[in-house]
Amino acid sequence: MPDIYPITPRNRVKRLHERGRYDHESVHAILDSAMLCHIAYVIDGQPYCTPTVFWREEDHLYWHGSSASRMLRSQKPGLPVCLTVTHMDSLVLARCGFNHSVDYRSVMAYGTAAIVDDAEEKARALSAMINRFYPDRDATLRPSTAQELKATMLVGMKIEDASAKIRAKGVGDEEEDYALPIYAARIPVYQVLGATEPCPRLIPGVERPEGLAGFTEGRRLDEVMSETAKLVYPD
Amino acid sequence: MPDIYPITPRNRVKRLHERGRYDHESVHAILDSAMLCHIAYVIDGQPYCTPTVFWREEDHLYWHGSSASRMLRSQKPGLPVCLTVTHMDSLVLARCGFNHSVDYRSVMAYGTAAIVDDAEEKARALSAMINRFYPDRDATLRPSTAQELKATMLVGMKIEDASAKIRAKGVGDEEEDYALPIYAARIPVYQVLGATEPCPRLIPGVERPEGLAGFTEGRRLDEVMSETAKLVYPD
Repeated sequence: MPDIYPITPRNRVKRLHERGRYDHESVHAILDSAMLCHIAYVIDGQPYCTPTVFWREEDHLYWHGSSASRMLRSQKPGLPVCLTVTHMDSLVLARCGFNHSVDYRSVMAYGTAAIVDDAEEKARALSAMINRFYPDRDATLRPSTAQELKATMLVGMKIEDASAKIRAKGVGDEEEDYALPIYAARIPVYQVLGATEPCPRLIPGVERPEGLAGFTEGRRLDEVMSETAKLVYPD
Repeated sequence: MPDIYPITPRNRVKRLHERGRYDHESVHAILDSAMLCHIAYVIDGQPYCTPTVFWREEDHLYWHGSSASRMLRSQKPGLPVCLTVTHMDSLVLARCGFNHSVDYRSVMAYGTAAIVDDAEEKARALSAMINRFYPDRDATLRPSTAQELKATMLVGMKIEDASAKIRAKGVGDEEEDYALPIYAARIPVYQVLGATEPCPRLIPGVERPEGLAGFTEGRRLDEVMSETAKLVYPD
């Protein structure tokens, strides 16, 4: 039996439930192919939706920010959040307005976010973050200062429940509409890397590290992120 | 004087406030270059972050979904939301962990979402949505049936306040770190269109419409969306 996140009232996919998945493999694959997420949280009844870089370690998600950040400060005692990742994979132009759509892969992960205060765990996780995105990079960097670590707030959450939702069928028209002389198509959308721009102030002779070998022009970011995750956190 | 959204406790950019902008032009430019947003809302104290397609008409934002959607059903009386758009423009690899970053353009727009119930306004807006993304397309489609319109819930919100946040500086290291023999770079990230895949069941002789001229392989989706918005809603 595959590992499955519990299905609860908040994560159960109600609309188009055939698109929903709860197994760890599907959920983690979508999370691991992303660098950016959006996090919903509530302060004094007001919802906020904040974009941030995040990463996964087993069933925990981490992100960080300045100690000054409103969102993170308010999370000190632990704050319910919904962390969402979305890949838009194509535009779907159908033969009627109703069937226009997009193909996508998304995950909504629920949990209670809390600040990671332990200095050792914080230093470990921030190094892990660098290496998760850019393999072997952390050891090549100027070490973090105590002041930098203090100014960085690390937030973590255990995934309590989560669901993935995937649409990948392209054009799906009503059967009788296929006979109509109307243009319909799927237009793929990709998030890709451009050509690396080395820092203009690079010291002569400093070479591009091996760990960045995957970050070549034209590659899909979701594929690079998936590869890097598998490299850094092999099962 | 340019039009400016009011600066309130909820939209004031606190962290790295020099990245914040409140003028309509900056906020609308980021909104109009996107098709996808993430919306934060609260039901019974639980935050949700839902991805959805949206569009802007002046200071109103619209999105839609099935009448069965939990999120939209709960919005019937008007629900506070934060609608966020984020473009990740590059990965920034600095000489220390602390200065690793991403370049981005984001908007957080606050308002009270409400269902648009008026049948005429709903039909108008849904046609407008198709044409906003795909110029002149709505008139070429099989008209919506009464049942389709009934099954679609349209949600709109006036932008009460909003802020844009932009980072576009690439590598920004501590002055003394530039002398270190450490690799640093900016790697651009683009969301681009792939080659159109016409529906395999297209009736012979049906041509690709003129309105899709901008949707060519390799083009940036944010640029196509901006162009389309200017075409459909000229100032």
